[in-house]
Amino acid sequence: MPRSLAIFGATGSVGQSTLDLVRRNRDDWHVSVLTANSDVVELAALAREFRPDLAVIADADAYQGLANALDGTGISVAAGQAALVEAAQQPADLVMAAIVGCAGLAPTMAALAAGTNVALANKEALVSAGALMTAAATASGARILPVDSEHNAIFQCLAGATYDQVARITLTASGGPFRTMSAADMARVTPAQAVAHPNWSMGAKISVDSATMMNKGLELIEAHHLFPVGLERIQILVHPQSVIHSMVEFVDRSTLAQLGAPDMRIPIASALAWPDRMVTPCTPLDLASIGRLDFEAPDEVRFPATALCRAAIAEGGGRPAQLNAANEIAVAAFLAGRISFPAIIDTVRAVIDGEAPPAPTALQDIFSIDAAARAAAMRRVESFEHA
Amino acid sequence: MPRSLAIFGATGSVGQSTLDLVRRNRDDWHVSVLTANSDVVELAALAREFRPDLAVIADADAYQGLANALDGTGISVAAGQAALVEAAQQPADLVMAAIVGCAGLAPTMAALAAGTNVALANKEALVSAGALMTAAATASGARILPVDSEHNAIFQCLAGATYDQVARITLTASGGPFRTMSAADMARVTPAQAVAHPNWSMGAKISVDSATMMNKGLELIEAHHLFPVGLERIQILVHPQSVIHSMVEFVDRSTLAQLGAPDMRIPIASALAWPDRMVTPCTPLDLASIGRLDFEAPDEVRFPATALCRAAIAEGGGRPAQLNAANEIAVAAFLAGRISFPAIIDTVRAVIDGEAPPAPTALQDIFSIDAAARAAAMRRVESFEHA
Repeated sequence: MPRSLAIFGATGSVGQSTLDLVRRNRDDWHVSVLTANSDVVELAALAREFRPDLAVIADADAYQGLANALDGTGISVAAGQAALVEAAQQPADLVMAAIVGCAGLAPTMAALAAGTNVALANKEALVSAGALMTAAATASGARILPVDSEHNAIFQCLAGATYDQVARITLTASGGPFRTMSAADMARVTPAQAVAHPNWSMGAKISVDSATMMNKGLELIEAHHLFPVGLERIQILVHPQSVIHSMVEFVDRSTLAQLGAPDMRIPIASALAWPDRMVTPCTPLDLASIGRLDFEAPDEVRFPATALCRAAIAEGGGRPAQLNAANEIAVAAFLAGRISFPAIIDTVRAVIDGEAPPAPTALQDIFSIDAAARAAAMRRVESFEHA
Repeated sequence: MPRSLAIFGATGSVGQSTLDLVRRNRDDWHVSVLTANSDVVELAALAREFRPDLAVIADADAYQGLANALDGTGISVAAGQAALVEAAQQPADLVMAAIVGCAGLAPTMAALAAGTNVALANKEALVSAGALMTAAATASGARILPVDSEHNAIFQCLAGATYDQVARITLTASGGPFRTMSAADMARVTPAQAVAHPNWSMGAKISVDSATMMNKGLELIEAHHLFPVGLERIQILVHPQSVIHSMVEFVDRSTLAQLGAPDMRIPIASALAWPDRMVTPCTPLDLASIGRLDFEAPDEVRFPATALCRAAIAEGGGRPAQLNAANEIAVAAFLAGRISFPAIIDTVRAVIDGEAPPAPTALQDIFSIDAAARAAAMRRVESFEHA
């Protein structure tokens, strides 16, 4: 009996990797929904291949293009944000939440509220709206199956253990391209240097987040919501080869770690097949060839982002959403050559040192906090430019 | 409600570590049985501390000494091999099978046949009598909870997964003190060099087994019985720091590994508390201080023991028991200065190249195979001496 799978963000990197796995196991899956932001051509091609019940394009203006492209296929077509939310409310065995950015919040929340298990690749869902998302999941009984390699690793290591059995969760971090660089040299790095990530092929934004280690701080926020063991029991360990994706130490001092090749299809497969396993075409781990794994404590003086994130979690409420939005603006300004590399973190710090946003009680509050934080970050960027 | 625990081999290293954990969690355990081989003084002291229902000394001649030492305590006293087996048949929530050598076979088998879960530290139970032990456990529904650090690691990584989800089990090996030594130099090593194990403090016999890598071959035999995924899916990886105790790669190419400090109380605690966890006083894992972990493929030319064990498993029947007995004699001869280091493996090979023993169908057959193999190995040792 095939399981039904709704894929939100089908044309992005995680969506494509998900469909690659589905393609290899067609009999196991019925793709019920495919969505994309604006790429009608690609969405239509995927819909013709995977024959979902419904294809949704987020860009409302693209409705007619998609309808024309799927004319005669029998596939229902919809467009716009409300259609995305409606699609997420449809019954499915699993929703793959792979929309990038705040656009993913509403459909992810809709799926969780409907009680559907969600394979979660959208970072903002937990970084900006973690308390709301986990509350919705708890209320409906939906499971959040993390797709991010670190959180998927922790999820696998826990394997049903209770949180009181956990002594410590260790998020591993590559340390990024500037791991061994002095603070003085980091003040002069260019966007081209920052986007050259050592282990994973990624987009520019997340590569810069890796270079500042803000990605690890954001993952700390996600881990805090996914695995509520207490912030003091979640630590970060620099591991340049990124072969160990994260670890859990139990109260008996046994540590379980998840390892694998840098291929997103591995954690995606874990989430898709959970609690079973599915065969993937990914490369087996060859530690004899890799030869060595290195570890070092993170340096929060040269890389203050993780400490900022810890403070934002500790304060709670709207702070993490504010931090995330400020970081997006700051990274974009750095990539545009408007501010220096260290000014990314300075911008974020300036924004979260400002007035605390009101505690969010609904997604709409998150969007307001997000917008206000972007505006505040923009003002800060401009002040740097005029300094 | 305390769980009842019968400890066979209470005065040995694993027994003492077990009692250390029980001592720290007295309310969780009722020690029902304590046994020792011949150390009446220590067994009596432990019995006075832990107040078992029954204390058994394997040495029948030591009965009166134990009876006198426990006079007036209300603790029942028994002695001899038959008393050990009877003690193993008593109801208990868990038996810790920590008797060293073939003397542990009969009580371990008795506990498994009675349907009692066994925390298994006695290597011979699986190396020499693996098929019989696992058949007894399957028939009665008893669980074997491995205590050896490698097998306990694999057990933890599997955490309820089915064997068809497993792509590969990787047993890690320190490589021993001669990991980087040439074959020519190994021909001249002394017993003192061979017993200096880099990571664990161990007895002379097991240290030599580590130096020849026979210990890893014997563990391969144990793993083959504990985790029947097929011999071709169990591999050995040299990892000099012994921080990763073993790994399981699943069909999706996710690998789970268990790590920890070199403290036997960690795997013992895992077996005692399973499927829960218990707090131990063991040192947390500090990978930042350890700094690096190394890995390399094993060299079966310089270290042929693992290939011999693979061949013995493949042939099955009485071969592994024969190999294990021949190895004990050969190691003792090396430690006594009677044969060279390479002659250990030559002796084992000569014995298992001999006539196949009849397939064992009961423990008595194992004892016969063991005795015959010891005699054959002894003859081989003498031929080396006279060569």
